Amino acid sequence: MSELRQNLATKEWVIIASERARRPHEYAEPGRPMCDEGPTWEASCPFCPGNEERDLEVARFPREGPWQVRIVGNRYPALTPAAPLEREYMGLMRRISGVGYHEVIVESPVHNTCAALESAENVMRVFQAFVERAWVVQSDPRIEYVLFFKNHGRQAGASLRHPHAQMMALPMVPSEVRVRADAARTYFDESGQCAYCAMLEQELATGQRVVLESKHFVVFVPYAAASPFHLWIVPRAHAASFFHSAPDVLADLGSVVRTVLRKLYVGLNNPDFNYVIRSAPVRDVGAPYLHWYLSIVPRISLVAGFEMGSGIYINPSLPEECARFLHGIEIAGSEKAAPHETA
Amino acid sequence: MSELRQNLATKEWVIIASERARRPHEYAEPGRPMCDEGPTWEASCPFCPGNEERDLEVARFPREGPWQVRIVGNRYPALTPAAPLEREYMGLMRRISGVGYHEVIVESPVHNTCAALESAENVMRVFQAFVERAWVVQSDPRIEYVLFFKNHGRQAGASLRHPHAQMMALPMVPSEVRVRADAARTYFDESGQCAYCAMLEQELATGQRVVLESKHFVVFVPYAAASPFHLWIVPRAHAASFFHSAPDVLADLGSVVRTVLRKLYVGLNNPDFNYVIRSAPVRDVGAPYLHWYLSIVPRISLVAGFEMGSGIYINPSLPEECARFLHGIEIAGSEKAAPHETA
Repeated sequence: MSELRQNLATKEWVIIASERARRPHEYAEPGRPMCDEGPTWEASCPFCPGNEERDLEVARFPREGPWQVRIVGNRYPALTPAAPLEREYMGLMRRISGVGYHEVIVESPVHNTCAALESAENVMRVFQAFVERAWVVQSDPRIEYVLFFKNHGRQAGASLRHPHAQMMALPMVPSEVRVRADAARTYFDESGQCAYCAMLEQELATGQRVVLESKHFVVFVPYAAASPFHLWIVPRAHAASFFHSAPDVLADLGSVVRTVLRKLYVGLNNPDFNYVIRSAPVRDVGAPYLHWYLSIVPRISLVAGFEMGSGIYINPSLPEECARFLHGIEIAGSEKAAPHETA
Repeated sequence: MSELRQNLATKEWVIIASERARRPHEYAEPGRPMCDEGPTWEASCPFCPGNEERDLEVARFPREGPWQVRIVGNRYPALTPAAPLEREYMGLMRRISGVGYHEVIVESPVHNTCAALESAENVMRVFQAFVERAWVVQSDPRIEYVLFFKNHGRQAGASLRHPHAQMMALPMVPSEVRVRADAARTYFDESGQCAYCAMLEQELATGQRVVLESKHFVVFVPYAAASPFHLWIVPRAHAASFFHSAPDVLADLGSVVRTVLRKLYVGLNNPDFNYVIRSAPVRDVGAPYLHWYLSIVPRISLVAGFEMGSGIYINPSLPEECARFLHGIEIAGSEKAAPHETA
C-alpha cells in the first residue's frame, strides 16, 4: 500500500506510491549516451579551450597556466550586477530590479566528461571555485542569497553538453528558502536541536537509507524522497553555510560527490539530474537551526498537475530500496581520472 | 532589464527575464499535432466507449443513456479509500497510510477531442462532474483536501491521449496549500480584505494583463506569472470553495475555460499544459481570506536546478505582452462543437 511521508525539517510531503513501484534496476534506461562518447573538443562549444568568450570571464583556476575550472557570466543573464537596486510596491504587486549575478562554472576544459568520470581532486576544484566566487559576490551588499546548482542532461534543463554548473546570486531571500528556514527554526525552538543534525542521527541509527559515509559527510536517500534516487549529502558537523567549509571538508566533498555521481552513472546509465546546494542566506550564516546540504535529484519522473497543485511529489519507488541499490554499486576509489590534456 | 516580481497573495517570486524574451507568437511551435487528428475511437484506449473498465467506474453522467462524462478509479492509484487511516511519528519522520481517492474524469466519449474543440456546454458538464464527485469524497471524514487537475500532452505528464482530468483527495492539507493560505491570511489580517479580491480590483483597474472578462470570471496573466501564458481564472465574487459554485457560475466557467483554452490552442498550436483548481481545504470553506481559482500553466519552459533550489521560476516573457497576444485572438462564441457521436 502507498503511504504519505513528511520530512518535518522541511514540512514537505511525498506519496510513496508502491502500487506503481518499479525495482531500482528497472530505472536504468538502456542505450543512453554516456558522457565520454564523442570528441574531447568541439569547435562550436563556447566552453572548450580556444573558444573562450574572454569578455564574459570573471575567474579562472589556476590563475596561471592552462585553466582547470573557469567562471564566466551567462551570455543571456537572468540577473546582472550592472542594474541599480530598485524596489517598488504597487498594492499586491512587488518588484525588484533584476540585480544579481548569473554565472556559469565550466568544470573542466574537456568537452566529453562529467564529475562521475573525473578524479576526486578535479571535482573538489569545482567546489573550491564555488566557494571562492561566492565570497566575492557576497561582498556586494545587495546580494542576499547565493545558489549553486547543476543541470546535467537535456531533461534536467542543460542546453550545452560541456560539463558546467551555474551560480545565481539574488537580491532577496526566496520565499521557499524562508519557508524551509521557518520549519527548521520551529523544530529548533521546540527541541533545542538542529533538525538536520537530528535527522543525521536518525539516519545513522537505522542505516536503512544510508548510501555512503565519509569522514565529513553522510549520503542518504531522504525518508520523504521526492523522486527515485533522490539523495542528500549532509555534513556531519553542524554548519549553516557551505561557503564557510574548510579545505579538508571541500576535499572530502569532492570525493563523496564524485563517488555518488559515479554510482548513479554506472547504476542508472548516466541519468539526467539536477543538484542544488542549499546553504544559508548571506545574513543568516550564524543561525543555529540552518544546516547546509547538497541535494541531487535524478530526472526520472515528470512533474505534472498534481505536483503543481499540491507541492507533493509522487515517488514510485521505495527510498530504502533505492538506497540499498546505490549502496551496493561498487566504485573503486582509485579509478583513473579522465585526462585533462586538451586538443 | 530583467526584474523580480512577487505576488504578495502567494509570496511567490519570479524573474521576468527580458534578456531572453521571445515575442509571444514565437512560442507557437510549428507542426505540433492538433487534437482532432487521428481516429475518433481507439480499440486500445481504456476510455473509449465499449472499452470501459466497469470494475473501476465510480460515476457516469448522465446516469441513463450514453455517457458524456465518466469517472473511474485510477488503475494504479497513488491513494486508495480501502486503506485504514494510520498516522505515525518517528522523530523527524511522519507518515500517514495512503488513504484517499485517485480518480480519472473522462471528459468526453470522443477520443480525438479536447476542451478547446468542444462546446461550452460540454466543458461545463466536466466541471459539474468535478463538483458532484467532490461532494461525495468530501463526505469521507478522512479527507482534508481535494484537488482537481489536468495534464494535457506528453510534456505535461499525460500518458493517454483521450481527454481526461484527474482528482486526488488527500488525508491531509499539503504544506504548500498551508503556506499560501498563511500568506493570504496575513494580508487579510493586515488589510481586512481578501488578497484575491484586491488583486482582481487591481487587474481590472490597470487592464494590462486581462485576457477576458465574463459575468462571473476575470481571466488574466498574473503579474508574477511563472511561465509564458500562465493564466488565472478567478471568480469575481468572493468564494473560498470551487465546490460550492452555483449552476450559473459553472455554466459561465465552462464557457470561459473553453474560450481561453481555445485561444491557447489556436494561438500557440495546441501547447501542452497543466491546469489545477486551487480551492479551500475541506474544513476551511468559510475562511474569509481564501478565494478559489483555476490556474493554467502551458508547459513551454523546462524546470531545472534554479527553480528546484529557489522555488523561483524564470519567465522569459512579459506577462503584459502575453496577455495582449491572447486577448487579440478572436474566438467565435458560436463555433460548432465537436460532435458527440461515437464509433
